[in-house]
Amino acid sequence: MGDVKEKAERAHWASIKMATLESEQKERALLAIAEALWREREAIQRANKEDLIKLQDLQRDGEVSTAVVKRLKLDEEKIRQVVEMVRDVAALDDPVGKTQYAVELDEGLELYRVSSPIGVVGVIFESRPDALPQIASLCLKSGNSVMLKGGSEASNSNRALFNVIRKVSLEAGCPEDWIQLMEAREEVAELLNLDEYVDLIIPRGSNSFVRYIEENTKIPVLGHSEGVCHIYVDRDADIEKAVEVCLDAKVQYPAVCNAVDTLLVHKEVAEGFLPRMLDRFKEFGVEVRGCSATVRLLGEGVKLASEDDWGAEYLDYVVAVKVVSDIGEAIQHVNGYGSHHTDSIITRCGEAALKFMEEVDSASVFWNASTRFADGYRYGLGAEVGISTGKIHARGPTGLDGLTIYKYYLVGSNQVVSSYVDSLSNSFKHRRLSKTWEEVRNQILRER
Amino acid sequence: MGDVKEKAERAHWASIKMATLESEQKERALLAIAEALWREREAIQRANKEDLIKLQDLQRDGEVSTAVVKRLKLDEEKIRQVVEMVRDVAALDDPVGKTQYAVELDEGLELYRVSSPIGVVGVIFESRPDALPQIASLCLKSGNSVMLKGGSEASNSNRALFNVIRKVSLEAGCPEDWIQLMEAREEVAELLNLDEYVDLIIPRGSNSFVRYIEENTKIPVLGHSEGVCHIYVDRDADIEKAVEVCLDAKVQYPAVCNAVDTLLVHKEVAEGFLPRMLDRFKEFGVEVRGCSATVRLLGEGVKLASEDDWGAEYLDYVVAVKVVSDIGEAIQHVNGYGSHHTDSIITRCGEAALKFMEEVDSASVFWNASTRFADGYRYGLGAEVGISTGKIHARGPTGLDGLTIYKYYLVGSNQVVSSYVDSLSNSFKHRRLSKTWEEVRNQILRER
Repeated sequence: MGDVKEKAERAHWASIKMATLESEQKERALLAIAEALWREREAIQRANKEDLIKLQDLQRDGEVSTAVVKRLKLDEEKIRQVVEMVRDVAALDDPVGKTQYAVELDEGLELYRVSSPIGVVGVIFESRPDALPQIASLCLKSGNSVMLKGGSEASNSNRALFNVIRKVSLEAGCPEDWIQLMEAREEVAELLNLDEYVDLIIPRGSNSFVRYIEENTKIPVLGHSEGVCHIYVDRDADIEKAVEVCLDAKVQYPAVCNAVDTLLVHKEVAEGFLPRMLDRFKEFGVEVRGCSATVRLLGEGVKLASEDDWGAEYLDYVVAVKVVSDIGEAIQHVNGYGSHHTDSIITRCGEAALKFMEEVDSASVFWNASTRFADGYRYGLGAEVGISTGKIHARGPTGLDGLTIYKYYLVGSNQVVSSYVDSLSNSFKHRRLSKTWEEVRNQILRER
Repeated sequence: MGDVKEKAERAHWASIKMATLESEQKERALLAIAEALWREREAIQRANKEDLIKLQDLQRDGEVSTAVVKRLKLDEEKIRQVVEMVRDVAALDDPVGKTQYAVELDEGLELYRVSSPIGVVGVIFESRPDALPQIASLCLKSGNSVMLKGGSEASNSNRALFNVIRKVSLEAGCPEDWIQLMEAREEVAELLNLDEYVDLIIPRGSNSFVRYIEENTKIPVLGHSEGVCHIYVDRDADIEKAVEVCLDAKVQYPAVCNAVDTLLVHKEVAEGFLPRMLDRFKEFGVEVRGCSATVRLLGEGVKLASEDDWGAEYLDYVVAVKVVSDIGEAIQHVNGYGSHHTDSIITRCGEAALKFMEEVDSASVFWNASTRFADGYRYGLGAEVGISTGKIHARGPTGLDGLTIYKYYLVGSNQVVSSYVDSLSNSFKHRRLSKTWEEVRNQILRER
């Protein structure tokens, strides 16, 4: 096709201009997009209806679930939410241009490390068309170009949304080509090879999909492979509260990555905790798969867990339960079977909590809280770009920060290195400055 | 072999303990290592002598250069420098445990984002044996496990250094297995497949070597592929100073990545600048390859550049020169042919400097300074882990920060998510806290 390569190359060149947009310009563009999405809501809904008709035809043949239809549908209420979300992103603090480190290397030689966009972000997302404006907004706010590929079921909706966003953002001063839409499935495979132009890939979707992407590209991937979450109910837990926290972590929304999968229960509280827990789980139809000790304690109502249950991500009303002899065994289990996503300890003992949180090698470690709190919005990050299970660049719930890197600015007065290497007269001061790059920049602009 | 897998698995488990070492413990271990390296200097030099004899045998057959022998040799002075370097790393600020973000989500529900080690770092370095103690020290300081593979010419030296470091660090309380040595070449290929246990690969060596590593692993790579550096001599440059800066950037140490490769000269100053520049370059035996305008201006002394010269990294006394018609052409050239490493503008005009620095998409952008300043030590980063030409995680000269990521600690009082989702009574406060995780931790420890 070659077409994707051209799109990526264009996006790359546009990204250099995107990086220089002023905060006000980006905010204005986002507000204009929000307004236009609302103004064009009928056209968007017409496009969405085409997708829905295609899908319903399929559904009559028994191929598609109602949940998929519901996710695909863009009614006025959903468009209102999208518009609200774009406005929220507009109101966020600009993540670009922040001085992270400023140091005087020597007199008249000042170094500034300043946050900057990454460049071109490729995002591959599945059938929810409301994902497109969200991703586009986050990339615009952070000064990145974006290459978008949505689910084919939503192709008409995506094209309609894309056209509105592209048109309005260009009118508001964004460089042509900053936003690119890919529509054919083959384009994804091609995108994954374009490490020359694409700086980061964000895949959204199933674990197997994310793993496929990771295995087929040299481009860095910000993604989320699996969420195998644990709660350890310690010897010193408040039993009643532990039951409610575990229940919330399982049933409040079981289909998501931060729902709990395995409960680890200290043997000394197993007798007090497990029967009550089982009663609550039964009310919500949760299937319990227990270790032999659990089965002995709870009897009939519980299935014996197999080795596959440890480390399983259920995304459903199923939970594995294991009785452990001490906190060390619990930590070992979490580190060995978990996915380093989110794990929680329930205890009144601060020392135990500290041990668990420090020794569990996960992005989020909680003390007396439901694993369901692991989420960018709840963390106060403003908007969630994704949840990363990697340990490089971004870890855990990731906000706009995940779409930035930094750049070093050195302002000198014609210094040369040889005068520091060869002579005894010169040496580096390395004195921290409180000045920011923004101040330097403003001064230059005033003096012109 | 399977052996590397076992080493990596052991390093992985040790990394969990490494992450919990106190700052004082790490500092003490490093000081003990420094002392032991000095104490054992004779044994180390004996091992080094074995490597040197092997190499000199090869050299007599005309296979090895004197530079290689010099690099390999560990005399007392070099060991003294190594010891000094380990002490310097010991004295650095602990990069782990720093609170980056603290927010009260709600009453009794506090979130802390705290810097943490990455886990297991695999480092592959070439024949300089002083690299081993440097890398090991940086990994210890940042709480990471490390897998080391040095050049085979230095195998005896590396083993001697490794044995001292391992023994002393274990005595000082580091977990067994935190440091692993690989000795066979085949082990590298195996290491690159161990993404289950190895979190980051740092290759040191030639560009082609780094590229080979990048192309053969799914593990993130912190590396440095190429340094194609430019200086743009603007219309408003101070000509005399520009000549000296360009000279320094080329000849002060041409074999390194931050030496300049291409000079871009504004047409209005070409006549004033180029002849003087050429005279200075001639004194140092620098070969100049110019565009046709340069050749017209300078005549005989200059070779006509070919297309391959733009974007070439010479690492030698060679420089390409191009006359450009304006700053826009210069920026376009840098972004098109450069390697996004380090580029500098020489000008008295602040506005031009700002335009160049903001529009050039490089890790380091300089105004009136030699490109040779791009270096972790000169930047005041304390110690350089490497220079990254990537745009994810770390960019440009990278200090200890590049060996850390972060972890979220949430301290609650048995909150559940359903109470925020279902009811109107609860909502998130997201109030920034000035408290640090260290303070929370100390309070817990005091209360036990």
